[in-house]
Amino acid sequence: MLKVLKFGGTSVGTLDRIQNVANIIKKIKDEGHDVIAIVSAMSGETNKLLDYAGYYSKTPKLDEIDMLLSSGERVTSALLSIALNEMGYKAMSMSGRQAGIVTDNAHTKARIESIDTTEMKKSIKDGNIIIVAGFQGIAQDTLRVSTLGRGGSDLTAVAIAGAIEADVCEIYTDVDGIYTTDPRIEPKAKKLDKISYDEMLELASLGAKVLQNRSVEMAKKLNVNLVSRSSFTPEVEGTLITKEENIMEKPVVSGIALDKNQIRVGMYGVTDRPGIASAIFTALADANINVDMIVQTRGLDGTTDLDFTIPTTDFEICKKVMEQFKAQAKNIDYNESICKVSIVGVGMKSHTGVASKAFTAMANENINIRIISTSEIKISMIVDEKYAELAVRALHEAYHLDK
Amino acid sequence: MLKVLKFGGTSVGTLDRIQNVANIIKKIKDEGHDVIAIVSAMSGETNKLLDYAGYYSKTPKLDEIDMLLSSGERVTSALLSIALNEMGYKAMSMSGRQAGIVTDNAHTKARIESIDTTEMKKSIKDGNIIIVAGFQGIAQDTLRVSTLGRGGSDLTAVAIAGAIEADVCEIYTDVDGIYTTDPRIEPKAKKLDKISYDEMLELASLGAKVLQNRSVEMAKKLNVNLVSRSSFTPEVEGTLITKEENIMEKPVVSGIALDKNQIRVGMYGVTDRPGIASAIFTALADANINVDMIVQTRGLDGTTDLDFTIPTTDFEICKKVMEQFKAQAKNIDYNESICKVSIVGVGMKSHTGVASKAFTAMANENINIRIISTSEIKISMIVDEKYAELAVRALHEAYHLDK
Repeated sequence: MLKVLKFGGTSVGTLDRIQNVANIIKKIKDEGHDVIAIVSAMSGETNKLLDYAGYYSKTPKLDEIDMLLSSGERVTSALLSIALNEMGYKAMSMSGRQAGIVTDNAHTKARIESIDTTEMKKSIKDGNIIIVAGFQGIAQDTLRVSTLGRGGSDLTAVAIAGAIEADVCEIYTDVDGIYTTDPRIEPKAKKLDKISYDEMLELASLGAKVLQNRSVEMAKKLNVNLVSRSSFTPEVEGTLITKEENIMEKPVVSGIALDKNQIRVGMYGVTDRPGIASAIFTALADANINVDMIVQTRGLDGTTDLDFTIPTTDFEICKKVMEQFKAQAKNIDYNESICKVSIVGVGMKSHTGVASKAFTAMANENINIRIISTSEIKISMIVDEKYAELAVRALHEAYHLDK
Repeated sequence: MLKVLKFGGTSVGTLDRIQNVANIIKKIKDEGHDVIAIVSAMSGETNKLLDYAGYYSKTPKLDEIDMLLSSGERVTSALLSIALNEMGYKAMSMSGRQAGIVTDNAHTKARIESIDTTEMKKSIKDGNIIIVAGFQGIAQDTLRVSTLGRGGSDLTAVAIAGAIEADVCEIYTDVDGIYTTDPRIEPKAKKLDKISYDEMLELASLGAKVLQNRSVEMAKKLNVNLVSRSSFTPEVEGTLITKEENIMEKPVVSGIALDKNQIRVGMYGVTDRPGIASAIFTALADANINVDMIVQTRGLDGTTDLDFTIPTTDFEICKKVMEQFKAQAKNIDYNESICKVSIVGVGMKSHTGVASKAFTAMANENINIRIISTSEIKISMIVDEKYAELAVRALHEAYHLDK
């Protein structure tokens, strides 16, 4: 098999841990597989370099930031290659350019435009383990080094796996897979063997931080079998993220996610005339505010109540935007003490009674549900933040996820 | 004018000092000059990275060492560019590759094969100050990053200055020029305004550590006007190293150099048959030992005495090589307590009595000269190490170099 492996900043955080990664690669190579490993900068390195830049400028030129930051991954790739060569394995480091990665010209948040796999294929044919400096490519117009932004090394791995048609793309972090819920909240949480791209996307956007949405989306698009596993316990199998058709037995519910970084915005007694909701949400969208759940209810006096949630990070800007709609409502208030609990599972599509089971579980614990929204494979509920953990545990039990 | 500037590791050793370099460049730019600056890694960075590599291997692959080390200069170039942009100047960092530097494939000690100045010329035309990451290029066959070895950033600067036909190449260190001798030994030493390439080559190889021979040789070959000056006192003019024709008034003696890293090898009572000296020096050359001064004297009994000097660093290997010639001599001994004092000056070519003045000065101080060797512009003498400083001061005075 051709395996693409990705090791994040924590996995390569010290010289010792880079040696540990070399040992993991050795084992996989010994099993007869070809290996392309993508590495991040040693943890702390990127922030150190950003601090350096901050010494000179609050708004450094982005192409220079890319020149600066891209050095971190290069160092790790060279060190890992040196370690593997010392162990008697042929290894070769490659910068993004050498690996054939061409991006658009949006420095610090570039998108991969194409990958020319010629050099990598040649190097693998020569018997090399390839170590690619993650997070970087060259900008198509200027040929200057570019970086891919947050989660860029994951993206590099998935994109390479797709371009070179690897059998699997394993993302190594300090977590050994995807769990039915956060084990720090529910110790009975179980690691999943498999999960579909769509479920993973819902879980990732809902606060499970193991994989970034951009990478999962790309894996889905390129049909890359993604594995989330740990470099600290490489003997543990991890979780396969794959297309739904590859999952024989589809559980009704795969996981429960919790997101505390939500604020509920309430707008009460809104004059009910056409276009008012549209005006509000257009203004919020123009301010780049990511509005999540929206509920509109009509009051008895002909006015309307509007409830919606936004990420905590958008709070200040949202308040500014809402100022202009003050005259249109009797009252606008903000509630920071709420959270979003979500149930995700592809099996929902073909099973009934999934939602009612959730509402019953909440009712049994006297938890009041303030907003509900559903998609084909997800049910989200806004509840008071003080019930966050209790709600997760109740739902985890209601769907027997510990079994 | 188009000025190529080079700032070494000490000059960019801290964030503060990089800002200082930005100020120097700003001033030159404000005077109306175009600027290409070549930078080294921040001092200590290269050694840190080598230590990292040493954690994994005593004999790391050289192409990986290049991938590793080349990151240091990239960081400095990006930071300096960020600082200049913040000050309102258009600046652009370039890796060796972007600057068009192609080398041979001898990783860690590559030689520059060619420089394609197209990108640099374009960037200067666009009004940019160019900041080139020194010490690196790409290997012509593999297109992998390569480094130029010790003094590589100086070489980058000189080679770029030659290729782009710059008016001057200023090498900034922590020393403000070339002195008639080491001011720590002779406080009356005077900074030279100008010195010829050949004199500089003699002084560099004799222990004046400001400029590396490789760079001066290349400057001579490419006819680049080189200036040695300090980034800590940029208001001081420095020393111009140029071709002899550009120096109107040629001093008889330009400087006195001292080299304590010499060992004298004495081989006494060598059977005087043809080919014996050849055999010895061939064996030493094969072991890459840089034999410097050689004196052969014939004894009364038909045997020969052979004296020569080697650098201290080659002592152990030299002893091993000499083992095989033990049978051919009555005695072989080594003297570590010697040093080489040299007088350099292009004016010697046309003046007589220069050597005798040196011998007189030595005799006046009762310093015994053990070996003498001369070239067209140099007189070197081996004396006991305890006389080193005294010899330098006596010669400095004899040639009135403090005037």
